[in-house]
Amino acid sequence: MPRPCPPGRTRPKRWSAATASPPLADSRLMRDDVLAVLNEAYRAVVEGLGSLADWGAQGSRPDQFACDIVADEAAFKVLDAAGVGVVSEERNAQGLERDIVVVVDPVDGTSNAIRGIPYYAISLCAVDRQGMQSSLVVNLATGTRFEAVRGQGALCDGRSIVASDCSTMEAAWVAVCGHPRQEHPWRHMRAFGATALELCDVARGLLDAYVNTDVDAIAPWDYLGALLVCHEAGAVSTDGLQRPLVTTDPAARRAPVVAATPSLLAEAVGYAWPGQAREIADR
Amino acid sequence: MPRPCPPGRTRPKRWSAATASPPLADSRLMRDDVLAVLNEAYRAVVEGLGSLADWGAQGSRPDQFACDIVADEAAFKVLDAAGVGVVSEERNAQGLERDIVVVVDPVDGTSNAIRGIPYYAISLCAVDRQGMQSSLVVNLATGTRFEAVRGQGALCDGRSIVASDCSTMEAAWVAVCGHPRQEHPWRHMRAFGATALELCDVARGLLDAYVNTDVDAIAPWDYLGALLVCHEAGAVSTDGLQRPLVTTDPAARRAPVVAATPSLLAEAVGYAWPGQAREIADR
Repeated sequence: MPRPCPPGRTRPKRWSAATASPPLADSRLMRDDVLAVLNEAYRAVVEGLGSLADWGAQGSRPDQFACDIVADEAAFKVLDAAGVGVVSEERNAQGLERDIVVVVDPVDGTSNAIRGIPYYAISLCAVDRQGMQSSLVVNLATGTRFEAVRGQGALCDGRSIVASDCSTMEAAWVAVCGHPRQEHPWRHMRAFGATALELCDVARGLLDAYVNTDVDAIAPWDYLGALLVCHEAGAVSTDGLQRPLVTTDPAARRAPVVAATPSLLAEAVGYAWPGQAREIADR
Repeated sequence: MPRPCPPGRTRPKRWSAATASPPLADSRLMRDDVLAVLNEAYRAVVEGLGSLADWGAQGSRPDQFACDIVADEAAFKVLDAAGVGVVSEERNAQGLERDIVVVVDPVDGTSNAIRGIPYYAISLCAVDRQGMQSSLVVNLATGTRFEAVRGQGALCDGRSIVASDCSTMEAAWVAVCGHPRQEHPWRHMRAFGATALELCDVARGLLDAYVNTDVDAIAPWDYLGALLVCHEAGAVSTDGLQRPLVTTDPAARRAPVVAATPSLLAEAVGYAWPGQAREIADR
């Protein structure tokens, strides 16, 4: 039975080299090497999960499951062998003093994975002394893959992506994590249940913004991989309480707000964090 | 690149012949014939959409798009030729006096379809003098197919499905349509943006409940096909204002609340419609 083609996702390209971060002094080869390591870690996770009969068996923490542990072990083995530091949701940080630290969530959206909702991902972000250097986020149920390299734009399944040009909450599709406040200024609310993928969906214009209304709910491994994808696709971001979003501190917790445009970001921050300044945009 | 298998969705089978509606006096052959017509209408819609270059071109109403119109024409042609009445979101009702009336939403979740979010569906429900007789809901992006026949259970991609055994809002995954109220008693909120599929996801245990907090937002074509799937999978339902949900009145608007179990339904109605009785369950 043939199925209809998915609707076209092509949209006017707003991103340009001028709006992306400037290229670094480090060689292209080196960045490619790091991206290759992220891809190798992803492949190891897929292999590890493929051999797992019961994804939902309990781990050592209440919110930890067999799939988290298996995926973490597979990713860590690759990353450690590559000589990078590792900050993972599932283990103590290691090698934070190294030139490159990879912040990894082996399975973001574990709850969706256990339930069978096809919206959960691996998220990997390589951070160097200048900040986010390269990242890889892959939907583990569908294989949809997001990649970004600082200064070189963002890709979805190999094609260049850009955020939408939505500039007002009234017209915006907004993914909400945490409890929506009483006021609801958006055109459509969505709650898909996996931060990394919701941010990537902002990057490719399926959504216009993401707000998190909990102060300390989100750790760097939840958002960092997708945040570089967002920035390289032209989206802007801030923390609701004006803390730096780019960090390898495993104890850090943040309230990211991400939007397709600066004016939408200002409105989104005003909605989610009414006491905070509306102008901040840390990209 | 191999992808991990989706997690298992097998769960203890709670549904049994005893909990489903009793079989009707009409012949099995007749019901199969109706289901065949629904499938033929679905195939015609897929074919029609497959030839459509731009799904998002505007229709005659602000919320109507080219894909709605093309899908409606394809479905109507099949249904009318089969001699059934038709109630569709996209045209005036026809043949309401006939023995069987098919209530159809050619594309439920049009907004998702236009944006490229793979969560939109065709929904068809055949209603006879006794109520909902058979239905078909298919996710048009993924091909995932839900079928139900009164008294014969519900299927997803040919396999029997049952709702979860979740009995409290505290443990429940709840899909919300409309604006969430300030109180938020669930374990997880989701908002996927297509009623028909959210209800079917309750039927197969990916979600535990669906609440709609708007009084008159939802028409029979939005929910009727999936409602039979829910009932045949053991879920229960009510309208927030105690109006009958099963109707072929094209002017009817409802506020359906659907839950995996009667006790969860009582809590869900209590949340969404605090002034209303909590015991109602019209299946």
